[in-house]
Amino acid sequence: MENNRVIIYDSTLRDGAQALGISFTVEDKLKIVRKLDQLGVDYIEAGNPSSNPKDLEFFEKVMKLKLNNSKIIAFGATRRANIKVEEDMNIQSLLNAGTEAVAVFGKAWDFQVTEILKTTLDENLSMIYDTIKYFKQKGKTVVYDAEHFFDGYNANSEYAMTTLKTAYEAGADAICLCDTKGASLPSYIGKVTKLVCQKISCAIGIHCHNDNGMAVAGSISAVEAGATQVQGTINGFGERCGNANLCTIIPNLQLMMGYECIPKENMEKLTPIARYVSEVANIIHDERAPFVGNCAFAHKAGMHADAVNKNTSAYEMINPTVVGNQRNILMSEVAGRSAVMSMINMVDSTITKDSPETKKIIERLKELEYEGYQYEGAESSFELVIRKILGKYKPFFELVEFKVIVDEPTVSSVSSSAMIKIKVGEQTEITAAEGDGPVNALDSALRKALERFYPQIAEIKLTDYKVRVLDSNFATASKVRVLIETSDGEEVWTTVGVSTDIIEASWRALVDSVEHKLIKSQICV
Amino acid sequence: MENNRVIIYDSTLRDGAQALGISFTVEDKLKIVRKLDQLGVDYIEAGNPSSNPKDLEFFEKVMKLKLNNSKIIAFGATRRANIKVEEDMNIQSLLNAGTEAVAVFGKAWDFQVTEILKTTLDENLSMIYDTIKYFKQKGKTVVYDAEHFFDGYNANSEYAMTTLKTAYEAGADAICLCDTKGASLPSYIGKVTKLVCQKISCAIGIHCHNDNGMAVAGSISAVEAGATQVQGTINGFGERCGNANLCTIIPNLQLMMGYECIPKENMEKLTPIARYVSEVANIIHDERAPFVGNCAFAHKAGMHADAVNKNTSAYEMINPTVVGNQRNILMSEVAGRSAVMSMINMVDSTITKDSPETKKIIERLKELEYEGYQYEGAESSFELVIRKILGKYKPFFELVEFKVIVDEPTVSSVSSSAMIKIKVGEQTEITAAEGDGPVNALDSALRKALERFYPQIAEIKLTDYKVRVLDSNFATASKVRVLIETSDGEEVWTTVGVSTDIIEASWRALVDSVEHKLIKSQICV
Repeated sequence: MENNRVIIYDSTLRDGAQALGISFTVEDKLKIVRKLDQLGVDYIEAGNPSSNPKDLEFFEKVMKLKLNNSKIIAFGATRRANIKVEEDMNIQSLLNAGTEAVAVFGKAWDFQVTEILKTTLDENLSMIYDTIKYFKQKGKTVVYDAEHFFDGYNANSEYAMTTLKTAYEAGADAICLCDTKGASLPSYIGKVTKLVCQKISCAIGIHCHNDNGMAVAGSISAVEAGATQVQGTINGFGERCGNANLCTIIPNLQLMMGYECIPKENMEKLTPIARYVSEVANIIHDERAPFVGNCAFAHKAGMHADAVNKNTSAYEMINPTVVGNQRNILMSEVAGRSAVMSMINMVDSTITKDSPETKKIIERLKELEYEGYQYEGAESSFELVIRKILGKYKPFFELVEFKVIVDEPTVSSVSSSAMIKIKVGEQTEITAAEGDGPVNALDSALRKALERFYPQIAEIKLTDYKVRVLDSNFATASKVRVLIETSDGEEVWTTVGVSTDIIEASWRALVDSVEHKLIKSQICV
Repeated sequence: MENNRVIIYDSTLRDGAQALGISFTVEDKLKIVRKLDQLGVDYIEAGNPSSNPKDLEFFEKVMKLKLNNSKIIAFGATRRANIKVEEDMNIQSLLNAGTEAVAVFGKAWDFQVTEILKTTLDENLSMIYDTIKYFKQKGKTVVYDAEHFFDGYNANSEYAMTTLKTAYEAGADAICLCDTKGASLPSYIGKVTKLVCQKISCAIGIHCHNDNGMAVAGSISAVEAGATQVQGTINGFGERCGNANLCTIIPNLQLMMGYECIPKENMEKLTPIARYVSEVANIIHDERAPFVGNCAFAHKAGMHADAVNKNTSAYEMINPTVVGNQRNILMSEVAGRSAVMSMINMVDSTITKDSPETKKIIERLKELEYEGYQYEGAESSFELVIRKILGKYKPFFELVEFKVIVDEPTVSSVSSSAMIKIKVGEQTEITAAEGDGPVNALDSALRKALERFYPQIAEIKLTDYKVRVLDSNFATASKVRVLIETSDGEEVWTTVGVSTDIIEASWRALVDSVEHKLIKSQICV
């Protein structure tokens, strides 16, 4: 193994699965295994077949998969105290999983041996020795996880080191130091890992938990100190504050520090795979996550956005596409003109940042944001603002009147209805619709009225609806900001509306939504 | 200053406000300032009055607040190249903000001086010197932020150090080293900070960004190397992957490392304040956040939960109540009954965790949570659920009918009206009210109708109203969860309602809100 090679050991399906809100089905796990193999991690920790029927079924199926890069590793405890290793059913179960490698965890902290396992320090050493020896004799590769190692070392460094030496003498191929409580400082982890690397000759690994918010840094620190294996999970999923996040560690080690973790050509799969795993786990993807979050390369503050356009290395640690992500330039109340220019130029390419129109548009943006509008993620509404200022906008219809009525108790199965009257040119259309709620009713009524004049309206469908209340000091008299996402099967666009009245705020977002479609189809005609 | 004192410098309202999806109103900022003062941070960075109308208004108001612990600090750039500092309008604006302290940022990286600012290395030094000197002469405390310091030091250590020395000679009270790109390893930050502390005699600070997922560790590393000021934001809010998270840094420094950051007695306010800021920012609180997330002390895996109950120091780094958090044993476990018991016992102290009623309540809770109810922060609604199951509830009124009408265009200054008919005993009351929006109208109408029977209703006032949309897959047919906060001047309580119809969801929360008041006044009578 070259000096710069770091083994990536993924525990998404074992440690990660212990996270609050995560419950993987067998199918979910198999999907994730395929993705992890595509990414190219070295080990995929898959739990213990004897844990429960689901895990047994999973093992049977996963051992039939043909994987190109990764090895499945079964995970379980050292033998129980005071019994022969051959007689421990969990050990037999690990053996029968049929994996090339097994991971065995044992105690390194004297206090835990006596108070939690309720056995002697010597018996614990035998448990470690016997278990690892047994698996080595059966031809397995063995990774030994020293649980609570850093706390154990702090309490009784001699005993902690003895547990490691015992594991080494029994033939462990790698010994992984676990910061199980997640409280160790990276500097301490580095110091202790260095000492261990000096005394133990096999590969040393690191397994951090994120309770102190420094699992990634602790892992990096251990590698700097000589560790050559890092255990963690995709997106840092795990109990409490999670495990060390491999999606942060891998780019740091490989792109920033020159280590080799996964095949080079697989790095661009990182973001898609991270998002995929969030999707399968049914967890909202952390958009602020380093490297793989949507915001990771999104610049907002005026000065920064300006500089990014001028010289990306000034502000970006890496090119986002390297990890399969993209640069997302946004606008805000402090945004410089350059941040808005690309949007303006999409409407009119002749406008420059010194044009008087640009100044007007930025002024208008500031005013609107002061009123509560937010165009990030609602660019289609901002495009309409630009069009209106540039004189490139003509209303498609005129609202004469609408009335929305909410009834309680409901006499039919729906509680809301909306009546609407619009004018297009000289023609008037009046219609009504029902809905599950007042906005649903109004949306249906508007589109029903417009379809008569603009058949393409039939192609659009609302796909998302968000409400944010602003200025909560004024309670129900406060403003609301409504975001509507619409799709016509081809494109998806988001529009925004703000008002003290939720119906009116929704109305504004709805109007922008249909107008975007109509402008689009007009341009295409 | 004692050796272990670390100054906490909060930039939630400046750097944090640059985060995607965050747009603080003036009121939001003032609320957060009060909370930050309660927490006891040393500095609250409040932006630059000249940025936009909102910030100007904010400064005028914040300077009138009476703060007990924190100092407001205005933030801006060094003077522009080739003009006198007195002639720079942004500098004048900072001066006129009237704060005791100002934060000035300038370039430390030679490449940025020439390529981004497009000026000479010497002029940059003059810009730094002139600006700091100017503010010192005006009697301000000055914090100098060396932008991109670590990258600048890596590129040209001599020039980077010269910029710091210049700042020091001009009289800077503290010099903050900024890892603006967020790519520096904690070990590098520690190494360089140590060198700076050896060469520069004033206080040294650290300002990390989280692009590499190690902003907290970088900050900790800098403090270990001699820094005595840490800049960051609540919940790590900020551009891209965020800023250094003060809610992680403060407990690490103070509880794990023996430093003094905030008054001891304020540490238990950390979690409530973190959650409050998330609420005001309208950002979903990160429940996996160290120390202040709901999951931070939540144990799920069978083995760990068992061990936690046996011996908490085995698995918990600190007692959660120290940071105002609680151990969250999930409802899905037997141990979860205890989490609900205290609420049940507030209604009926004879109920135990083995009572059949407890089981019924937990079952009902699971059903309601499945439907989208969430009682965290809406305990008053859950209290009503408990009362209904325990038979300690009698309706105060019966709804006969309500109708809410929203009109556009508005003929008067309000767009919504609500008609309501209720029955109390044998008597019927029908009335109507207007409002800025449908919920406002309905709320006014309900209270108007109830006041005839229950005069104490006049004491209550809605103080906050939040809407969350669930199941966004189904667009406007999706469910909404409405949270209503009500006050009677003495107590503040929050209630919740869920429905596909926002009016109905609001109705349910409103009913719970008034019933809580009526039960309360009934008990007091």
